[in-house]
Amino acid sequence: MKQKLSIIKIGGNVIENQKELNRFLDVFAAMEGPKILVHGGGKLATQIAEKLGIESKMVGGRRITDEEGLKVITMVYGGLANKNIVAQLQAKGTNAIGLSGADGNAIRAVKRPVKEIDYGFAGDVEEVNAQAVDKLLQANFVPVFCAITHNGDGQLLNTNADTIASEVAIGMSKDYDTTLYYCFEKKGVLMDIADESSVVKHLEPGNYKELLQQKIIADGMLPKLENCFHALHKNVGKVCIGDIEMLDSNATLFTTITL
Amino acid sequence: MKQKLSIIKIGGNVIENQKELNRFLDVFAAMEGPKILVHGGGKLATQIAEKLGIESKMVGGRRITDEEGLKVITMVYGGLANKNIVAQLQAKGTNAIGLSGADGNAIRAVKRPVKEIDYGFAGDVEEVNAQAVDKLLQANFVPVFCAITHNGDGQLLNTNADTIASEVAIGMSKDYDTTLYYCFEKKGVLMDIADESSVVKHLEPGNYKELLQQKIIADGMLPKLENCFHALHKNVGKVCIGDIEMLDSNATLFTTITL
Repeated sequence: MKQKLSIIKIGGNVIENQKELNRFLDVFAAMEGPKILVHGGGKLATQIAEKLGIESKMVGGRRITDEEGLKVITMVYGGLANKNIVAQLQAKGTNAIGLSGADGNAIRAVKRPVKEIDYGFAGDVEEVNAQAVDKLLQANFVPVFCAITHNGDGQLLNTNADTIASEVAIGMSKDYDTTLYYCFEKKGVLMDIADESSVVKHLEPGNYKELLQQKIIADGMLPKLENCFHALHKNVGKVCIGDIEMLDSNATLFTTITL
Repeated sequence: MKQKLSIIKIGGNVIENQKELNRFLDVFAAMEGPKILVHGGGKLATQIAEKLGIESKMVGGRRITDEEGLKVITMVYGGLANKNIVAQLQAKGTNAIGLSGADGNAIRAVKRPVKEIDYGFAGDVEEVNAQAVDKLLQANFVPVFCAITHNGDGQLLNTNADTIASEVAIGMSKDYDTTLYYCFEKKGVLMDIADESSVVKHLEPGNYKELLQQKIIADGMLPKLENCFHALHKNVGKVCIGDIEMLDSNATLFTTITL
């Protein structure tokens, strides 16, 4: 039987708020077994960019990463956010090691091809180096990934943190029984967006299709869930969506997704 | 017989100049055997701080690190400089992994006590976690340290890169036959500061004392060499001082320091 491995993604909204971040890191530190953290950087990068007089360009909710923007992301995600998370986890007894995809050649990506939109230095994940990540896990480190990859030719690339989390989970699924956790501000997939108790506790292709037809799943939740099912089809054991409390071993109110 | 290990420190002047950095990384990548890189950040941090409207305070050539200054250092050293060096080394076939002292709890420091001067978030190294660094070396990673440590209680600390290099070399000397290389803009310790060919090829306590008395060693070179002899007294095998070319296996013009 394969050993269990948890891959947890937290969003920018947790990173931005030191109290929320601390609460998250407490729960994360308490999780048993091998685990990997993936974090975004959120509005922090936009704030620093503004102060530096660099305009953050967004198209369809996606950041356009020009050369100056990439520098800001490398500073904020790879430096400020990542190193502070690592230091705080170390203080909580978790042997964190901060990584970009360049470190240990952990995540190789390709610069997104220019079609209608030129996303600049945005990377689409090509390969997760499961062997390198596994070496760190075997040495009892807890990898903490920021949302930066590299192309293997010296170029860093800005990469979606949700995608990094799912690709890392997929990459590790050959050797581990993986669970991918997406932490966000809601309790999970909700039947009624205004009612936090209306969590769909179990989602599988059957009721997912129904919820899609009833337009209960729409907007931002749609690509998130497509990402989840993609991971499951690529041998990730299960995917869980919910807020920070989902990571508590006694938690019951969150969405579990399986095939 | 212990295995050889090279610890190489490069200064901010190399980091600041992409052409120089590339030349250095080529030579570094070609060095055989296990190796560790330690880099400063130099004026890059001051430049970014200026753009952000943060004043860089210096007293006696040492940076006073207030809270905002520490953020800049974490962004620039830990993010921008470190991740770019790692990505470029990966492109040259060197399996670099970027680290602060917080990562893997590699370097623990204590916030410098306030005496005449309050240096702010400046760290004096307390302990190098040789076991953690060795795990990375055993797994064929090449550690690349930026000049940031942590106090084990969640606080990052700005730490002199020369000190980090010597403390890492000292820490690893129990298990390895260590050579500590300080790369800077000169060919080595010079008899005549205006003549790059006047390199003192071999320095040991005897002629060091003489050069001190003759005031040939003074100013900035003095603390650098004291740091070198401190490392040698703590079991570092030898210390070499010179420019980038010193790292070439055919190099002859640089200063070697032994006891």
